[in-house]
Amino acid sequence: MIHSFQIGDTYNHGFEINNTKYNQFIDLSDDHNLMHVDDEYPKQFGFKGKIMHGNILNAFLSYFIGECLPIKNVVIQSQNIEYKKPIYLDTIVKLEVVVDSVVESVNVVIFKFKFLSLEGNVFAKGKIQIGVL
Amino acid sequence: MIHSFQIGDTYNHGFEINNTKYNQFIDLSDDHNLMHVDDEYPKQFGFKGKIMHGNILNAFLSYFIGECLPIKNVVIQSQNIEYKKPIYLDTIVKLEVVVDSVVESVNVVIFKFKFLSLEGNVFAKGKIQIGVL
Repeated sequence: MIHSFQIGDTYNHGFEINNTKYNQFIDLSDDHNLMHVDDEYPKQFGFKGKIMHGNILNAFLSYFIGECLPIKNVVIQSQNIEYKKPIYLDTIVKLEVVVDSVVESVNVVIFKFKFLSLEGNVFAKGKIQIGVL
Repeated sequence: MIHSFQIGDTYNHGFEINNTKYNQFIDLSDDHNLMHVDDEYPKQFGFKGKIMHGNILNAFLSYFIGECLPIKNVVIQSQNIEYKKPIYLDTIVKLEVVVDSVVESVNVVIFKFKFLSLEGNVFAKGKIQIGVL
């Protein structure tokens, strides 16, 4: 019995990609690619300005798994993400997560997630699999 | 023609998960799950102490794509990762990347990657797909 996870259970959490988060990610990653640090360079490719690093969202997933679930004795086993739309600085992103499957025999739970704008546009989506210890 | 990416091209880079990186990730993610911040709690599950957040590796992938490729006009389209072994504080991880496929018609390059210990044990592996702009 894996805690009380049921297929279809949903979770919602809001995050803000502001200057603090943006700079914290650059400190961590050292990724200063011009797409992410220059407001002019990305415009030649049709973007409005510098785009946020997609992997900021993966740090938010770490928060979701580590802090938002009803149990703490979990580890991420695998995860995937598809980036659908660019995110610019000072954007609120909504994380919507649903339990996609529960494999009791191996204590595994798989979640589907989406990161959305306040208007409901999908910035990114994917799946994340955890093991319950 | 997508720059000069060829199937089989390889890249290597070393990273260190030290106290600075660990704390930078906690600042970014706010993930204070006991598995990651307590040296005793994880022992009941067979770990030697607190385990590093797997998503630190995804920040390293951001660095690889943003900083280590021969061109800068790229964006990550999707990525996946499987975590195979826990990483403890003060560990050097080697990133090995190989070009897995090149889809010239849509300017896409797919890389396979592994994060390894100095002894060659696989901490994590996966794929990352970029678009060349």
